Amino acid sequence: MQKGVMRPGHVQIRVMDLNEALEHYCNVVGLIETDRDAEGRVYLKAWTEVDRYSVVLREADSPGMDFMGFKVLNNEVLDTLREDLTAYGCEIEDIAAGELNNCGRRVRFKAPTGHFFELYAEKERTGKWGVTNVNPEAWPRDLKGMKAERFDHCLLYGTDVPATVKLFEDVLGFSLAEQVVDPDGKRIAGFITTGMKAHDVAFIECPEPNKFHHASFCLDTWDSVLRAADLLTMTDTPKDIGPTRHGLTHGQTIYFFDPSGNRNEVFCGGDYHYPDHEPVTWKAEDLGKAIFYHDRALNERFLEVLT
Amino acid sequence: MQKGVMRPGHVQIRVMDLNEALEHYCNVVGLIETDRDAEGRVYLKAWTEVDRYSVVLREADSPGMDFMGFKVLNNEVLDTLREDLTAYGCEIEDIAAGELNNCGRRVRFKAPTGHFFELYAEKERTGKWGVTNVNPEAWPRDLKGMKAERFDHCLLYGTDVPATVKLFEDVLGFSLAEQVVDPDGKRIAGFITTGMKAHDVAFIECPEPNKFHHASFCLDTWDSVLRAADLLTMTDTPKDIGPTRHGLTHGQTIYFFDPSGNRNEVFCGGDYHYPDHEPVTWKAEDLGKAIFYHDRALNERFLEVLT
Amino acid sequence: MQKGVMRPGHVQIRVMDLNEALEHYCNVVGLIETDRDAEGRVYLKAWTEVDRYSVVLREADSPGMDFMGFKVLNNEVLDTLREDLTAYGCEIEDIAAGELNNCGRRVRFKAPTGHFFELYAEKERTGKWGVTNVNPEAWPRDLKGMKAERFDHCLLYGTDVPATVKLFEDVLGFSLAEQVVDPDGKRIAGFITTGMKAHDVAFIECPEPNKFHHASFCLDTWDSVLRAADLLTMTDTPKDIGPTRHGLTHGQTIYFFDPSGNRNEVFCGGDYHYPDHEPVTWKAEDLGKAIFYHDRALNERFLEVLT
Amino acid sequence: MQKGVMRPGHVQIRVMDLNEALEHYCNVVGLIETDRDAEGRVYLKAWTEVDRYSVVLREADSPGMDFMGFKVLNNEVLDTLREDLTAYGCEIEDIAAGELNNCGRRVRFKAPTGHFFELYAEKERTGKWGVTNVNPEAWPRDLKGMKAERFDHCLLYGTDVPATVKLFEDVLGFSLAEQVVDPDGKRIAGFITTGMKAHDVAFIECPEPNKFHHASFCLDTWDSVLRAADLLTMTDTPKDIGPTRHGLTHGQTIYFFDPSGNRNEVFCGGDYHYPDHEPVTWKAEDLGKAIFYHDRALNERFLEVLT
Repeated sequence: MQKGVMRPGHVQIRVMDLNEALEHYCNVVGLIETDRDAEGRVYLKAWTEVDRYSVVLREADSPGMDFMGFKVLNNEVLDTLREDLTAYGCEIEDIAAGELNNCGRRVRFKAPTGHFFELYAEKERTGKWGVTNVNPEAWPRDLKGMKAERFDHCLLYGTDVPATVKLFEDVLGFSLAEQVVDPDGKRIAGFITTGMKAHDVAFIECPEPNKFHHASFCLDTWDSVLRAADLLTMTDTPKDIGPTRHGLTHGQTIYFFDPSGNRNEVFCGGDYHYPDHEPVTWKAEDLGKAIFYHDRALNERFLEVLT
Repeated sequence: MQKGVMRPGHVQIRVMDLNEALEHYCNVVGLIETDRDAEGRVYLKAWTEVDRYSVVLREADSPGMDFMGFKVLNNEVLDTLREDLTAYGCEIEDIAAGELNNCGRRVRFKAPTGHFFELYAEKERTGKWGVTNVNPEAWPRDLKGMKAERFDHCLLYGTDVPATVKLFEDVLGFSLAEQVVDPDGKRIAGFITTGMKAHDVAFIECPEPNKFHHASFCLDTWDSVLRAADLLTMTDTPKDIGPTRHGLTHGQTIYFFDPSGNRNEVFCGGDYHYPDHEPVTWKAEDLGKAIFYHDRALNERFLEVLT
Repeated sequence: MQKGVMRPGHVQIRVMDLNEALEHYCNVVGLIETDRDAEGRVYLKAWTEVDRYSVVLREADSPGMDFMGFKVLNNEVLDTLREDLTAYGCEIEDIAAGELNNCGRRVRFKAPTGHFFELYAEKERTGKWGVTNVNPEAWPRDLKGMKAERFDHCLLYGTDVPATVKLFEDVLGFSLAEQVVDPDGKRIAGFITTGMKAHDVAFIECPEPNKFHHASFCLDTWDSVLRAADLLTMTDTPKDIGPTRHGLTHGQTIYFFDPSGNRNEVFCGGDYHYPDHEPVTWKAEDLGKAIFYHDRALNERFLEVLT
Repeated sequence: MQKGVMRPGHVQIRVMDLNEALEHYCNVVGLIETDRDAEGRVYLKAWTEVDRYSVVLREADSPGMDFMGFKVLNNEVLDTLREDLTAYGCEIEDIAAGELNNCGRRVRFKAPTGHFFELYAEKERTGKWGVTNVNPEAWPRDLKGMKAERFDHCLLYGTDVPATVKLFEDVLGFSLAEQVVDPDGKRIAGFITTGMKAHDVAFIECPEPNKFHHASFCLDTWDSVLRAADLLTMTDTPKDIGPTRHGLTHGQTIYFFDPSGNRNEVFCGGDYHYPDHEPVTWKAEDLGKAIFYHDRALNERFLEVLT
């Protein structure tokens, strides 16, 4: 958090049928609906998050990610980063407070990969769901499905990953935790973080800009990853891969798809990172092992199924 | 244990290079070498087993299983079962005590699936490995690799599974825990047990007799299954599938191959069975889900790679 | 199962307030109510059990265990064991079919420890709760509380444990899995089993006959033991000890109390046993470690709080 | 990390017999010896740490903690924080580079609780132990004992916790994650962090200054916590309490003692914290539950056994 960016705060995902999506995100993934707006968007959160929501579902004709937002420490930081982004050459869009329910003003910019990101300092803080802030119990008894604990990160595919990583490092204070480098020394993937997590957002190089690989939610244990996989089968939810471990970050994971074809991940574990850590490097020629540590080979969907 | 057959007691596996096989079974799977014989065979055990060995490796030109042995309560039971097998029409081969080191006389028969099984009542009892029998500690500190706890069962492919299951039920007192039935009502797989485990041996119908699908070793937890999968990657051991859950028995599993191409399984969990339980039935048209509960599809190797 | 006794089939527990007891056994332990009878008794089961019930709660003025029942293979076995018990000198009480709902005739006898046991061959088989018997899913989604999987065993205190163990061994075909022996060689505790479990019933010597230490329910994993302990705190349920591991059987456990003061256990893991295994012996002078492997000391309640 | 303090970097612990201490910290806890110095101090690290050491053992006549050090981003941050500490009224001791092997200059100050802390920007970076930084495997195969992953935090007892927390917040940019407040509103415990962990250091009010409650090391899973408890028994290491869960932070834990009587903790899990999170508050009258969530009562050692 070297420049005051705290964490991934929200992601707006396009879904093609809102009711099916809610069935998926609430009853399978275990998010909790906390709000709706006049536009018809539905707001969800995972139970350990203190802010009112982290996932916004918007009904649309095609799936994908509209934008991902990061919460910053305060409005002074927001102003400074707005200036720094502008100075760095980013085109900024200012979005007024309230455009997303109960969220302060947002500073939006487009990364070289083609994705839209935004920064904001304020969102209604409703506290963790189902537990109090005084003498809190260990967990709420009424969680559903996979009991996702937190919206954790997104993996995004797009153009010019090196420039995007540089922007996040230089302007926003992110740190490169892991990377994939091809034999020519070109960085084809960057996993970056603004805290101790192995990644708050990750990028993989791709000829097409602004593609969405997955939104990821963390679970508490490898036992929960097993039960999550069981639930996918019980609910006939299309699975992509897993349970398995990633090489990159060493997290334990399952990939699956929401009813609109957006990929989700639930995972647990994974390495931690501090800014003085040298980035972990994976060789592009070992990408299979880097992504799917046990299979040591990619499935074809990993590089091709994007929204 | 309705007829006095206690448990799977040993399996003799053909390997093409003994040293490579020992590296695999001892340092990866975590079995312990306990003996060798004049023929060059090597005897291994898993640490919780009280008898001297459960796996016998024999160097040969081709991989596969020579035979699987079951330990019975005592010599009276052995005599009775020998008579019963003969009366049932099985051809018996009597093998003298000592043919396998420290093992009493064995009664060998061939099942309709083409596999050789044997019964025996005596084998040197050396106690669990690494713990005493008075005030025993929870586990030994010096285990290696996957720390396999027990040789658990074999899955065998062959001809006429229904007749083989009937033989084990009627003569040896096994109970059918799970089965796969095709749309014509034909049983194409039978998982049978003589104790509370979901299977002590399992059969899948196949045009060729006497084929070996895998020998299975049990681990303590799903965390151990993860670490086992990690070890496969670290040691460049060919993995077949997993970590995942089976539909049949609901055990949590990985399949992989020894250096000769014999498939191994390590697993944890799984349902229990009593003789009054109705067998669990899986439909052949859902065989994918029955075998690989999460993927809901077979990989091609499952039906084709046999030794 | 050397004499045809399959497993612990039920336990009838006295509770002082039926509604409080149901809140405890259903919403905390996670058993499922399946029946009530004209006497006001309530019948419960754990989800993996195939019979209609395993726990019967009877409202009474004092807590404790009325009796524990074992299911045998069939009525022929029941007749034989009835004769054998009589020949051994046990006084038999024949209880008519239907005295417990949907249960066949029961043969009741009193053990030297003062406890009442019964054998029966028939009980309505309703199948596992919440899953079908064809293509069964891994687990039902609607379980409550600790999601207990099975009524597993009882630990009972009483007089003359050696004679009771001998009766179960000689007449009922049980096997001694573990024992505690004092410096004079006297067996002061016996853990006995009729299957592969470390114990189906256990006895500890005590000057007073017919005392109830606990009824035990098994869980799937050590993670579930943690969540069970969490639930005890969340529901203000009195805990005795744990999470911890036993020395005896090496199971991982929590002890707690129902609202009437009956002790319950939930546990996972534990060693397996076959009839040819030498019994594991714990020295009475190390009883602390034998019972509570991590604390290596008894709490005073272990020997004194009985119902 | 609002002021550039990254993480707990080292703790120097006094032990009364160095060889016994090494046996404990290396073979039981699983740290790795990486260096010794002319003074006879021994330097240890946990395997996931990238710096050369995190624990320094010094042989002395009495146990306890000499000092705890935090690594900061760089020398500019170190200079700024040195000035800020001075301006805040702290007396500073400058310690030359090399006083601890391979460590840069350190800025030492005394907190109102009586403990010595220090900041430093440089320490030899040797990388994670046993894995490479290119295509790293998931974990090294040669770890010992509990396989501790990281020196995580210390819990310290001393005078004037509120002033110490304020110093860490105002000058060093820490955030208060959790606190215990007495009925008069006085903060008697503060758990503070400079990253996402629930605490990097914690304080409990006590009439005597500069007391050491424990140094804590993190493990990967609750299964590892169980095995750690097993190891304590196997090695006759005095255990304090656990396995259990804390209320504060909800981590899953065991407390035990090194041969000199210094308390250690190994734990897994625990809540995360961001600077905008309201601190979690525990009521002093519920301190038992706050500390030992399952027992809901303190053991007498918790408040009294300090070094």
